Amino acid sequence: MAQKRKDFQALIKKWLHANKKSGIHLLQELVRAKSTQGNEAACQNIIIRTLTNMGLQVDVWDPDENELQKNPYFASSRTEFKGSPNVVGRLKGTGGGRSIILNGHVDVVPEGDRDQWTHDPYSGKVENGKMYGRGVTDMKGGNVSLLLAIQVLQALNVTLKGDVIFESVIEEESGGSGTLASILRGYKADAAIIPEPTNMKIFPKQQGSMWFRLHVKGRSAHGGTRYEGVSAIEKSMFVVNHIRELENKRNERITDPLYKTIPIPIPINIGKIEGGDWPSSVADLVKIEGRMGVSPEETMEEAKKEMENWLQRISEVDPWFEQYPLKLEWFGARWLPGSIQTDHELVASLSRNYQSVLKKDPVIEASPWGTDGGLLTNVGETPSIVFGPGVTEKAHFPNEYIELNKVFETAEIIALTLLDWCGIELN
Amino acid sequence: MAQKRKDFQALIKKWLHANKKSGIHLLQELVRAKSTQGNEAACQNIIIRTLTNMGLQVDVWDPDENELQKNPYFASSRTEFKGSPNVVGRLKGTGGGRSIILNGHVDVVPEGDRDQWTHDPYSGKVENGKMYGRGVTDMKGGNVSLLLAIQVLQALNVTLKGDVIFESVIEEESGGSGTLASILRGYKADAAIIPEPTNMKIFPKQQGSMWFRLHVKGRSAHGGTRYEGVSAIEKSMFVVNHIRELENKRNERITDPLYKTIPIPIPINIGKIEGGDWPSSVADLVKIEGRMGVSPEETMEEAKKEMENWLQRISEVDPWFEQYPLKLEWFGARWLPGSIQTDHELVASLSRNYQSVLKKDPVIEASPWGTDGGLLTNVGETPSIVFGPGVTEKAHFPNEYIELNKVFETAEIIALTLLDWCGIELN
Repeated sequence: MAQKRKDFQALIKKWLHANKKSGIHLLQELVRAKSTQGNEAACQNIIIRTLTNMGLQVDVWDPDENELQKNPYFASSRTEFKGSPNVVGRLKGTGGGRSIILNGHVDVVPEGDRDQWTHDPYSGKVENGKMYGRGVTDMKGGNVSLLLAIQVLQALNVTLKGDVIFESVIEEESGGSGTLASILRGYKADAAIIPEPTNMKIFPKQQGSMWFRLHVKGRSAHGGTRYEGVSAIEKSMFVVNHIRELENKRNERITDPLYKTIPIPIPINIGKIEGGDWPSSVADLVKIEGRMGVSPEETMEEAKKEMENWLQRISEVDPWFEQYPLKLEWFGARWLPGSIQTDHELVASLSRNYQSVLKKDPVIEASPWGTDGGLLTNVGETPSIVFGPGVTEKAHFPNEYIELNKVFETAEIIALTLLDWCGIELN
Repeated sequence: MAQKRKDFQALIKKWLHANKKSGIHLLQELVRAKSTQGNEAACQNIIIRTLTNMGLQVDVWDPDENELQKNPYFASSRTEFKGSPNVVGRLKGTGGGRSIILNGHVDVVPEGDRDQWTHDPYSGKVENGKMYGRGVTDMKGGNVSLLLAIQVLQALNVTLKGDVIFESVIEEESGGSGTLASILRGYKADAAIIPEPTNMKIFPKQQGSMWFRLHVKGRSAHGGTRYEGVSAIEKSMFVVNHIRELENKRNERITDPLYKTIPIPIPINIGKIEGGDWPSSVADLVKIEGRMGVSPEETMEEAKKEMENWLQRISEVDPWFEQYPLKLEWFGARWLPGSIQTDHELVASLSRNYQSVLKKDPVIEASPWGTDGGLLTNVGETPSIVFGPGVTEKAHFPNEYIELNKVFETAEIIALTLLDWCGIELN
């Protein structure tokens, strides 16, 4: 049997090698279909065509904003999703096996300052084994790995027992409305793999996160008599330091070995600051926006509550805030944390196949960011693992790229894992 | 002679009282002529009509941008001044006396958030002895005091020996291009009074100021791995503290008794901060804008140099700045400091007349902000005093107002001072 499996693995590798050109071509097509928020349709059409050609049952729908808005896990800046379809393709199993969701998002973050890109961000330029472009690493490369994994099993005439549900969703970058809509449409499975850019690390746990905004008040005055005012900019520094203390406190509690190499497991990032409106005036309002990391061991509500209580205590250290309390808002995107047991069978299978394909042990860690895995695991009752070929450091950055070899290595590992997880129907 | 002067003062007071209604009406007309930057013509037309009716020699011209741009003291965001005239009216003296410039600006800062105003900011609403409106205190009320002072002397048939040059200028709020244009046109005198809103304090010295912008660099990273980046927001706090130290250093040097009641004689105000562009990213650039106060005892260049040298030393305390140096720009508006001797005869005359009209000693201080007095004194060779009826605290604020009585008291004090300074030709 072991020999047989080894032969099989060789066949998979061979097919993937033989189909490298068409895999790269598909990825390039997807990258060229610029799929920033609200513009996902062209990219989804490529997916629909591909899934149809593969003979899968294809389901295409625009998420229903009315249904989503009623859901407590909905967090989006969008009020409608018309023209931004989700696409699901199902490879029906013969029954008796475990099902799996293979989930990838097609939405990409904006390219930012074009001058910082060497090539057109939507060219899909290939150079020295890398493909460049916005979204290539986060996460169209991973999506192609998923499609290749299914295709190779089909090409080798493998019949699986469990269903394979391939989900091509929108809105991951903005809080997961696409995956939430898939869950609400009834898609669930015994487990899920999400090939976000992990540098091929295996993430059984994912940090959640949510955004907050603080309004820090001051009292205006002319700059020439600044001592008559109270600077909201100076008070903001106080607030930033206070938040830093909370970050320390929260991270000291984390003992999970999956975080052992991570300097700050659940950081609180202050990402934006803006305040004052005139160089010669004392600033009377500063707005701070940031991202609070949420541990897989806590709920979003617990994390919120801790932040709220901590910020209230700022008036104990500076009485200014008694009279002019900080205003805290939770706004915009949020990602639920996710977690499955590290001894979960899917982790074991992925690890074994990683070893078998790459001849080395995988790195198993907790992810420093949220993914749709939080929703799948906690809301969709589908335990999820994040594992993908993209370059973590390049996600959201200029000159985003992926190493093409890794797309195929990931496809090989996932194909083997599907065999383990879903079971083979011997014909 | 003392008795005669006392009688004369009574006549001045009587005339001002009798003409209260027309004085208030003129002020209201000026306030209603919204004269924000670029929209000064309507307001200047009222001045032209008034000066013409008074029989003064009237000079009206649009400042010449080509000439101004060649001048090292020019600092403006405007590149042309067409349709924004300066107006000067000269009351010719019989000769043998000292001349005086009475300078007031007609430009007003924008009204800001209208919701914070109880009345329409350009209504000139009168309520309980106060007139409300943008510019009423800064400084149309003072301008009316000047006009009334000339009018009352004309009405009483006083002939002065020295010339009285009334200047109604544009652009004071944006760095003094109007007064600079008057100087370049040849207007100068033996002294000047500028009735900016001083709460009727006498300011023989005026703080200068200039604007700066700092670019503080960081290194971007995803907020979930913020430890891989360097936050420009955290570095900015460091910069703000470093500037605070410079402010301390500079203010410790100031021993002038005119500053004895002023907590920070020459403040450095940090007025604006803006940086980062995404809550989930580590900010890689923060821009800080502020206003550096300049002492009457130093030049603008000396102050700039001190700031530049001090900011360079920040890398001694944080090596980050060696690799990513702070970028410092001087931009936008600036106001030269101004100073005349506190025992100058015009100070003495104003003080004496203040005492005589209000039966109490005047407050003589250094101003916490720059005015066109810096240009007049340093560039126009016309030693200047700032003294006016407006409410310092209300300048640039919502619900700006002036106490109407003070407009007339100031007119009375200035009329008496003109007699002292210019000398009376006995017919």
